[in-house]
Amino acid sequence: MMGTLSVADLPALARGAAVLGTGGGGDPHVGRLLAQQALSQHGPVETVPLDDVPDEAFVLPVGMMGAPTVMVEKLPSGDQVGAAVETLGDYLGRPVTHVACIEAGGVNSTIPLVAAAQLGLPLVDADGMGRAFPELQMVLPTLHDIAATPMAIADEKGNRGVLDTVSNHWAERLARVATVEMGCSTMVSLFAMDGAQAKASLVPGTLSRCREIGQAIERARAANADPVAAVSRALGGRLLATGKVVDVARRTTTGFARGQATITGTDDFSGRSVVLDFQNEHLIATLDDRPLATTPDLIVVLDRETGEPITTEALRYGHRVAVLGAPCDERWHTDAGIELVGPRYFGYDLDPVRASAGTATP
Amino acid sequence: MMGTLSVADLPALARGAAVLGTGGGGDPHVGRLLAQQALSQHGPVETVPLDDVPDEAFVLPVGMMGAPTVMVEKLPSGDQVGAAVETLGDYLGRPVTHVACIEAGGVNSTIPLVAAAQLGLPLVDADGMGRAFPELQMVLPTLHDIAATPMAIADEKGNRGVLDTVSNHWAERLARVATVEMGCSTMVSLFAMDGAQAKASLVPGTLSRCREIGQAIERARAANADPVAAVSRALGGRLLATGKVVDVARRTTTGFARGQATITGTDDFSGRSVVLDFQNEHLIATLDDRPLATTPDLIVVLDRETGEPITTEALRYGHRVAVLGAPCDERWHTDAGIELVGPRYFGYDLDPVRASAGTATP
Repeated sequence: MMGTLSVADLPALARGAAVLGTGGGGDPHVGRLLAQQALSQHGPVETVPLDDVPDEAFVLPVGMMGAPTVMVEKLPSGDQVGAAVETLGDYLGRPVTHVACIEAGGVNSTIPLVAAAQLGLPLVDADGMGRAFPELQMVLPTLHDIAATPMAIADEKGNRGVLDTVSNHWAERLARVATVEMGCSTMVSLFAMDGAQAKASLVPGTLSRCREIGQAIERARAANADPVAAVSRALGGRLLATGKVVDVARRTTTGFARGQATITGTDDFSGRSVVLDFQNEHLIATLDDRPLATTPDLIVVLDRETGEPITTEALRYGHRVAVLGAPCDERWHTDAGIELVGPRYFGYDLDPVRASAGTATP
Repeated sequence: MMGTLSVADLPALARGAAVLGTGGGGDPHVGRLLAQQALSQHGPVETVPLDDVPDEAFVLPVGMMGAPTVMVEKLPSGDQVGAAVETLGDYLGRPVTHVACIEAGGVNSTIPLVAAAQLGLPLVDADGMGRAFPELQMVLPTLHDIAATPMAIADEKGNRGVLDTVSNHWAERLARVATVEMGCSTMVSLFAMDGAQAKASLVPGTLSRCREIGQAIERARAANADPVAAVSRALGGRLLATGKVVDVARRTTTGFARGQATITGTDDFSGRSVVLDFQNEHLIATLDDRPLATTPDLIVVLDRETGEPITTEALRYGHRVAVLGAPCDERWHTDAGIELVGPRYFGYDLDPVRASAGTATP
């Protein structure tokens, strides 16, 4: 990547991260404000390409856990980020050399910047999935047998915890109930790993990619070009549909924002109906009852005119949107990847449908 | 106390502890078996009177958390006791000098014996409340401003956690949801304190008292005397009623065994009806709609003939029982004590009724 990330990079970074967040990963406005405060105070953060991380480095990923519907109302603080990292660092008793990003998302791509700025440590240009997923074991490091725990969890009230579990699924279960009790959003630090593990398991270049996607949106707007097409090109994806949101059924349960959005087609999709199923992130896009694209591929909702990514908690009646599909990191399409994050894990009796292999064009 | 506790002491100790457990604190049979295994392996445990604990000692209480209805089906293991103590000891990074008991109860008075035997440490002859209460902040150390956390929690699967909370109520909230997710019973180590704090806040002599109560039951049986009267004398209490259990409504929710038992009076109480409300422990005893005794005083249910203490999870239709009331540690009757464990905390719109001040005698 670019060497440093400064306040000037934040709008593009947060916006692009929200695109890869596929509806989840946090609101980019909140994410930008959080990082802006930290960078203003501590100065720019040094970034390191994944390949340049030494094998013996000690890398600490950090992020938010919980329901995005709550995160937009209960804003995280920089102190909370520090509390999570400090708690885990103290517990592990080993000096941290690098901070990393666990998932791409409007908040979860900027939280690690806050931690890196506070600690004066470099940030690895990478993330744990190349997108966002709702549960904490849903990262490529799990496929590489890297333990999520010991992990730290911190809330905004000052409560802290460390979990050391027998599996990454158990880490999710226990951190989730703690998160719900702590008020549905917490800061977590987990998947501590050495540099060799990071290089084997993380997705390289995610922060650069977020910034590039954000810049593509800004350039298209400035040139009066179509920002949606610009995002589609940047993702190597395709347009699944355009339409108007006519219904959003949303509930915040068991620590997640779950729901379904119904979109009535416009333009070339006129007369057709698109349904999006989500759990923090978009999981399934259906066109006239036929699955168009499913997890693990990316389903991205953008404002039809501005190309602004719309998170699942921000979806509203009347929104004119474009729905894009795009390929995920290919490791998610292995048998183990599909078992971890495929439609059946989420309770849908469907084989995965690749966003690029559909036949949605009207 | 007596200097050592060995396998021969266990039946009386566990039985007497179940009496002070007031329906909760765990099944004495389970508690006895657990301790028997540890003492057989490691030999007798040295016990130390509370007054003899040096001010600079570092005392670690340990116990079980959860619903007694579950504990009798999912038996704890000695390894789990060790895991909780070890996890907290490692986290605190300070050598533990003494083990202590957090509450009196059939299991919770013998778990610390297991820990002391495993660690080769002396056990303090004391406990944190002089009885059992359902929530973890409900101990006299809370009234003495001693923090419950950092605390460790361990389940039988190998999951472990450390919590560091802003209050003892938050420790209860977070440990409770973790306990529920871990399968409704866990081992916890908490309220780590120095010797001076222990002497100020614990109830002295509880283990001795448990053993004496248990021995009183055994002696009365051997002498064909009334074991119920023997327990009443040992507790300084009085008989509230005798009767037959005609209904038990029981549910295990939010990590507790909650319910209500209805008893039809016999002997001098013939024609009268006694209702016991419980949350792990008996909280309210009502005779013909009038409260006879309430928390924080002790409400103890014994087998009418044998004097065997009956835990709330073991109450069954047809059981012939005696219900005793007995005074608690006087510190529970302070304003702060009543706020922490009085009837109103548990949702009953009642002033506390002392077991010794009622007018229940028919």
